[in-house]
Amino acid sequence: MTAPAVRPITATTGAGQRGPVDHERRAQIIAAADQHFRHYGFNKTTVADLAKAIGLSTAYIYKFFDSKKAIGEAICTRCLDAISEQLRIIVAEPTSAADRLRRIYPTLARAGAELFFEERKLHDIVVTAVAENWHSGTNYEEELRRVVRELVVSGREAGEFETETPLEEVCLGIEETLWPFAHPLMLEEKLDKLDTATAAVAGLVLRSLRP
Amino acid sequence: MTAPAVRPITATTGAGQRGPVDHERRAQIIAAADQHFRHYGFNKTTVADLAKAIGLSTAYIYKFFDSKKAIGEAICTRCLDAISEQLRIIVAEPTSAADRLRRIYPTLARAGAELFFEERKLHDIVVTAVAENWHSGTNYEEELRRVVRELVVSGREAGEFETETPLEEVCLGIEETLWPFAHPLMLEEKLDKLDTATAAVAGLVLRSLRP
Repeated sequence: MTAPAVRPITATTGAGQRGPVDHERRAQIIAAADQHFRHYGFNKTTVADLAKAIGLSTAYIYKFFDSKKAIGEAICTRCLDAISEQLRIIVAEPTSAADRLRRIYPTLARAGAELFFEERKLHDIVVTAVAENWHSGTNYEEELRRVVRELVVSGREAGEFETETPLEEVCLGIEETLWPFAHPLMLEEKLDKLDTATAAVAGLVLRSLRP
Repeated sequence: MTAPAVRPITATTGAGQRGPVDHERRAQIIAAADQHFRHYGFNKTTVADLAKAIGLSTAYIYKFFDSKKAIGEAICTRCLDAISEQLRIIVAEPTSAADRLRRIYPTLARAGAELFFEERKLHDIVVTAVAENWHSGTNYEEELRRVVRELVVSGREAGEFETETPLEEVCLGIEETLWPFAHPLMLEEKLDKLDTATAAVAGLVLRSLRP
């Protein structure tokens, strides 16, 4: 009697992803695809083009991703995770909440500018992701919300920030002030004045938080 | 001896516009084109299609506009002027600067939502205008800047707002907080929560302006 066929351990690691988890190959495909798409354009490239360019078979790529969109989502998630990571580092620092909140703005803007744009050309995956409302953006939005709330709560507990205004209202207001620096299409319009714009908004927000 | 041919009085009334100024026909063409484009799509319609639909000859339309883009720009300008007009009315009211500034946010957001979207479908002229960075947007941006400065100066003169922070910095910060409600692509993402979002941001800005 032969052993029953065993299904390999698989898990979905993101929208449209499949096959082995934690596979180094997955990360390699994402990195290679990112470079290829930046160069040749996401919309103009097929999975077959991509496979050929990075020296893999189309079938092999389909082991990990069920569509070109799934690869695109993985690239976006990778970009946005890299930005979130930088924000997380700031949030975890042992300085005042005001200092950390102030630094969120330029960090968000500069990291976004570096990751979404290469030589000032907006990555066309980002344009497609925004237009089609991809899932990756939703997670990022939630992450920004968590960052804001954590800093506001921390500043309130330390007596740095006013506590009269309802917490929800304060957090929602601050989140909105982050969007001009978080949204790639808004960011694109002010690549030339990121430093003055982020300083002005961070200053405004901190003045609004005075007890 | 016959009289020399007299060139009709002409003036450019906007990018790509030509022919007689103040001509009722121009406004009629813009209004009809707006309705037609909303229905059939700006990108999918030619000037010939448009002319046929509104019962004019293509040549007649070309008397007023040198391209489809010029008609699109005129439609955008008409939309944005209508929003600016509503903001101007608020700025001119005899109430406190704080009250006027607070009302700028919901007015901007609601007017934009009404004019850019019809039954929640974003006017595709707007998408094209944003993508191609049409001139109409630049003027609107300047108008928003004027509104902000006028209200801040008025509030400072009346002793309502703090005067320690440099005026330029305060104005720049406030302008950035308007963008999430002024930019059609940002507005589209929050049509469901315009009231809470505008109230939260207006509240934040007013707290930042406390003396």
